[in-house]
Parts: sequence; C-alpha cells; structure tokens
Amino acid sequence: MNGTFYGIGVGPGDPELLTVKAIHAIKAADVLIAPKTEKKEGSVALGIARPYLKEDIEIVYQVFPMVKGFEKDASAWKENKEEILALLRAGKNVAFLTLGDPMFYSTYIYVYRLLAAESDVDVKTIPGIPAFAAIGSRVGYPIVEGDEVLSIIPATAPQEKIERALAASDNAVLMKVYKNADEVISLLEAHGLAQQAVLVSRAGLPEERIVTDISAHKGEPLNYLSTILTRRK
Amino acid sequence: MNGTFYGIGVGPGDPELLTVKAIHAIKAADVLIAPKTEKKEGSVALGIARPYLKEDIEIVYQVFPMVKGFEKDASAWKENKEEILALLRAGKNVAFLTLGDPMFYSTYIYVYRLLAAESDVDVKTIPGIPAFAAIGSRVGYPIVEGDEVLSIIPATAPQEKIERALAASDNAVLMKVYKNADEVISLLEAHGLAQQAVLVSRAGLPEERIVTDISAHKGEPLNYLSTILTRRK
Repeated sequence: MNGTFYGIGVGPGDPELLTVKAIHAIKAADVLIAPKTEKKEGSVALGIARPYLKEDIEIVYQVFPMVKGFEKDASAWKENKEEILALLRAGKNVAFLTLGDPMFYSTYIYVYRLLAAESDVDVKTIPGIPAFAAIGSRVGYPIVEGDEVLSIIPATAPQEKIERALAASDNAVLMKVYKNADEVISLLEAHGLAQQAVLVSRAGLPEERIVTDISAHKGEPLNYLSTILTRRK
Repeated sequence: MNGTFYGIGVGPGDPELLTVKAIHAIKAADVLIAPKTEKKEGSVALGIARPYLKEDIEIVYQVFPMVKGFEKDASAWKENKEEILALLRAGKNVAFLTLGDPMFYSTYIYVYRLLAAESDVDVKTIPGIPAFAAIGSRVGYPIVEGDEVLSIIPATAPQEKIERALAASDNAVLMKVYKNADEVISLLEAHGLAQQAVLVSRAGLPEERIVTDISAHKGEPLNYLSTILTRRK
C-alpha cells in the first residue's frame, strides 16, 4: 500500500501550539522532506517537530526554486516530485513541515499542487496556528471584531497594492516584514495605522521581541519571522 | 493565590485540532463560563472540550448582550465581571471557550477587555485554529500565496464595505455567511469571485457540507457556521 503524504502546519514556534492531529502525523512519518532554500524557516519547523519524530526518521533535503512562476525551473520540481512519489509508492509516509499554517504563503502550496494531481497518492494537509493568531493571543491584541474587515498583506507586495488594501480595511496583518520594514512602517504612518500597531518577531521562540512603538524603531534590523498587527480604531 | 483566567480557542470542530496548550488549560479549569446568548456556538465549543474537562467542573452560565457598543447594557457586563472576579479571587481557574480563535470575531474579546484591566488578575489567551485555515487544509484550497492580499470579511458588514474589500484583495474569506448568503454570493459573482469559491458549513463536524458551485445553491438554508473561501485567479 502507498504511504500517505502529510503537509503539516506546526504553528509559529511554541511546541505547545502543535495540534493533536499534527503530532499524530509527525509520529507517523517515515521520511521528512526538508526544503534547503528557505531562510531558516525549515530548521525552525524541524525544531518544533523534533520531540515527536521517529528516532530513525529519514531526512531528504530538496531544493525548491522559489522564483515567481516556478514553472521556470520545472525540472527541479519534477525531480522533487518523482523522489517523493517513489518514497510513497515504497509504502513510506512522507511529511512536509510548514511554520504556521500550510495554506498561508508556504512552499507547501506548490508541493501540494504537484502531488494532488496524482490519482494514487493520498495527501493529508493539517492546519496550524498562523503566527498572527498566536501574536494576538500572546500580546492581548484583538485581531478583528464586529463588522470589521481584516487584510492580510505580505510586505513583499508592490507598494500600491499594500496601500489599496490598507485603505479598504479596518485592521491589518503585515507578514514577511523584514527587508523593507521602514517603508512598511512609513505606509502605516501615512494611513493612520502606526500608533496602534504591534510588531512581534519570533513569537513564542527564544529571542522573541515585541515592539509597540514601531515608528521609534525604524532603521533597526529585524528577524525574518516578523509580523505587524494593526487596527484603525 | 488567585486563579488564572483562560481564554481558550478550541478550533473549528474536529477535537484533534485542539492544541496541546489548549488541552492543558481545559484540564486546569475549575469553572467554565458558558455564554447563553450565542447560536449554539457555545455548545459546539463545549462539545469539543468535554473529553478533557474535570468531571466535577462548575459551569456558570452568563448572558452577554451583544448589542453594538456593548456599554449600552453595561450592567449585565459588570455583573458578569464581578462574578468572574469573585471566582478567580477564590483561587479557582476559570475558562472561557471560543470556537476557532479567541481574537477573531468573538465574545471573548469583550470579556478579555473587562478582565485585562484588573491588575490582580492573570489572563492567558490561547490561540486556536481559525475555521478558514481548517477549511483550506480540508478541501485542498490554498488560502493565500506569493504577493497576494487576503481579506477576511464578515458577511454581516455593510454591502459597500464588503465591495470595497473585495475590490482591494486577491483572495477573500467570507465569515458568518448565513442570513444573507444570497446577497453575498451575488456580490462575489459581480466581482468575478464566485466561480473559484468554496463554501463549507460545519467544517470537521457532523453534517459537514462542502459546496463548490455556490451560484447553483442560492436560496438554500445555511448553517450558522458557514465560511466561503475564494480567489481571483
């Protein structure tokens, strides 16, 4: 019988934020696919899952070219897919870990699309606590209430797009805030959304950092895992 | 020593989507505050937590008037607060359960604000898997990727506000879709967002329902716990 492919959300950092379902899937895995490309995200996810992994688990490193329109390097993806399919068809359960939730801005989405098209493969995706949800609870910051609209915006998007989203929403979550944090903070200031903001890096992990006066912290280097929550009122 | 007040996200329905941290808090609770007002949401949350509750747990029912600007009925809130404070000061751990995440559109946000202002009270909020995240994994629907912007929109918001948010985002989650589902579906059609949509009621619960052709299902009654995911591409 073919193995199962598990896409597992491990939450934002605190190992206690793993779900029961995620723990079951991590324990069932014979092989772990570990992406080589990402900026330490992979190793953070592995650290969260490690206490539950089989001792003799096989770790397979794969390179996922994250160029826009990933079909540009279709050959690498095709090789990864063939390697995973061979493992599954040998009866092994294969797991892919994602920090936060697997259906939010993750490499897993592309892996999922590759495999979901195969009729003989059983793919199970297990949701995880997104970083923004963990941060809201951690710092006592209600994320969205009543009739409010929340936008979730990647700081990597074009400025015009970020501004359009900020203008149309009551509250916002800015994700992937690190390279252009100063520009993002300036945009929030221009939209009256800086004063009420909170920025959290490495939520629930060692070296967690919570900044409530973001305008005073322009120019400071930020960890890759940084998120801003803000609201109009 | 005073007890701890736990605001606990229990996720959308599947008991395996509880986190380890939520289970610890549920087990530690001596008293459970159960809201009387809500449309069965409270009892669904209680059902998810029940296997972990102390056998002799005390259940205190409270009415939370959910009028806009809840200060309108400040007396009921004040009574609830005094009742909770008395329990905490008697050394009891008190829990409040929320379906999904406690910082998303929940009664808990108001309870949290009441209690967080008290200097001698320890409030711990524990995030939960939001329904939209669970649905994305359940039906294999990537929620947001790359540079896309996601809007989370309550179907109860004014139409103009919903349209502004739809126009400014790539992908959208529509929550609380039940009373005005037909109008919401018409808005999605007008914005080219109906064809790619999926509607899920009672995700992970008995009587779960998944609808991929939402336009064909106008006029049908919907469960209170219904969410739509959609995307432009």
